[in-house]
Amino acid sequence: MTRMQDIADKLGISKGTVSKALNGTSNISEELQKKILETAVEMGYTKKLRRQKDTEQKLCILIDNMEYEEPYQNAYDIVLGFRQMAEPAGYTVDIIRVTEKLQRSMPYDVFMLQNNYMGAFILGFSLSAAWMRDFLTSHTPTVLYDNYIIANPTISYVGVDSNEGMELAVSYLKQLGHRKIGYLTSALGSYVMQARHKAFFQALRQADMNADPAYARGSYHITECMEKHLPRLLDMGVTAIICCHDQMAHAALLQCQQLGYHIPKDLSIIGFDDLPFCAYTSPPLTTIRQNRIQIGKSGYSALESLLNQVSIGTLLLHAQLIVRNSAGEPPVHK
Amino acid sequence: MTRMQDIADKLGISKGTVSKALNGTSNISEELQKKILETAVEMGYTKKLRRQKDTEQKLCILIDNMEYEEPYQNAYDIVLGFRQMAEPAGYTVDIIRVTEKLQRSMPYDVFMLQNNYMGAFILGFSLSAAWMRDFLTSHTPTVLYDNYIIANPTISYVGVDSNEGMELAVSYLKQLGHRKIGYLTSALGSYVMQARHKAFFQALRQADMNADPAYARGSYHITECMEKHLPRLLDMGVTAIICCHDQMAHAALLQCQQLGYHIPKDLSIIGFDDLPFCAYTSPPLTTIRQNRIQIGKSGYSALESLLNQVSIGTLLLHAQLIVRNSAGEPPVHK
Repeated sequence: MTRMQDIADKLGISKGTVSKALNGTSNISEELQKKILETAVEMGYTKKLRRQKDTEQKLCILIDNMEYEEPYQNAYDIVLGFRQMAEPAGYTVDIIRVTEKLQRSMPYDVFMLQNNYMGAFILGFSLSAAWMRDFLTSHTPTVLYDNYIIANPTISYVGVDSNEGMELAVSYLKQLGHRKIGYLTSALGSYVMQARHKAFFQALRQADMNADPAYARGSYHITECMEKHLPRLLDMGVTAIICCHDQMAHAALLQCQQLGYHIPKDLSIIGFDDLPFCAYTSPPLTTIRQNRIQIGKSGYSALESLLNQVSIGTLLLHAQLIVRNSAGEPPVHK
Repeated sequence: MTRMQDIADKLGISKGTVSKALNGTSNISEELQKKILETAVEMGYTKKLRRQKDTEQKLCILIDNMEYEEPYQNAYDIVLGFRQMAEPAGYTVDIIRVTEKLQRSMPYDVFMLQNNYMGAFILGFSLSAAWMRDFLTSHTPTVLYDNYIIANPTISYVGVDSNEGMELAVSYLKQLGHRKIGYLTSALGSYVMQARHKAFFQALRQADMNADPAYARGSYHITECMEKHLPRLLDMGVTAIICCHDQMAHAALLQCQQLGYHIPKDLSIIGFDDLPFCAYTSPPLTTIRQNRIQIGKSGYSALESLLNQVSIGTLLLHAQLIVRNSAGEPPVHK
């Protein structure tokens, strides 16, 4: 475990100067502070959990590609759940939107150290985000929502169980009588989209159904999914379509209705996430729920475990099938 | 949420009588108590988390097929880690060895209700244990070590990440130069043995190595593994063997040495679990660690989440490769 004295020894300066740099005091040069921070990170120094009640203990939620300001937005409840646990436990929680520019301006551990954060909860990062590489070797307790890093003991992955979710959706459709199920997905540029795609085929195999790769189709733009991939699935004779997320399911619902399909009489559609709007579509959307308040709470639990040297790798919440009206028995003549 | 009054109404008796039965007071007939308990379970009644400091809150650890009394035994640290978290939080923890007879004598939820347990941590149950079926529909917050139940929101699975562990072992061996790796396993009668078996092949595929099913061999009796399966793997020309657990690895180590093999010069052997004896074998055993104190602590964290209606399905700790001396470069002429 690296102490301030070790950093001071390495740089041949006093421990007091190191302390000033790490605590952001302004009366040392920017250049020296930068050098101290980088050395600290290189040596694996991290802020330690302090038991004194009077020192401020700060955590942060770092967000990209997700909205959290309004209750109907997908990260709102996640942030809320995290704060509901962290703040009563005595932590200050800063919520920060991180740009690609910020990520490229300094390594992740330097950012965390410089801002006095003991740990972070990371929302919405794509696989190509600059700091995703930093997480491979980071020393800072960090929980990733829907992203997984192998073999780094200070990084956890929290999410909903994609395998369980797909298994619930497929076995529900099978029970209704469906035998040909398609999958519409956006681009596989995020960990969770890859996980759901894989889980779809695993669920088909588990249900002894045809798991031909052609049954999953998709691309980055929803319009392309609607105009190209959806008609192709319909041509293949699927009687049900599972979608990678609720927005895709809603778009498919509207598109199929425009094409003259009655949902669910002619075609069943199932979403994923259970976003607030799902209860209000016409017909209301059957979907897999990820409970976002619980995601937030679990994010905090995992981070607390990491701060206490319990090395959680993966924490998955139970998925839950929410049955509404967009899925039913398949049409008789297919 | 079922209340005592609901049970009383259903049976046409007073709430006081229901309360007596649920709290184990002796002045009602055994027959009536049995009827009340069974009705309570049927209606999904469970003990609720009470915030008062003066009422005793009881959890239990139920153990089968594992030993915990002595520090060198595999469940000792798991029990310790659980108690280190639960007792300071105000819980009493009972540790109970459950026989097959007890499991057959009453349903799991009745046992828990009758003994006033709010939740349980379950260690060592095989897939054929009678209560494993009860967990599918149980209403009691329950954390299973190394067992998974799908789609029951009150049951969690806690363990070490088998996929990560196997990936670490296989990529380490690949880096050393091995191209043909075998796997020795005991019978696949437990969830974790199945998970590790599957993870072995996934790791081979991930490393672009031959994942022919013939590379995994095993059976219930270790002697049979040594006399039949181990020689077969050696005949197939493997230069390294990963074993399903450390006892198997140690047996393989001794058997190979008897056959004249020098470990690791002629053959590399890797275990799984990092039991305390691994540092003392000759040569000391390279293995995948599951940190048992952390398993215990995580078991408590997951149970606490379930008691607070956060529905954790799976909690996996990071696996860690512990490099000692039973694995090295493959012999040159193979």
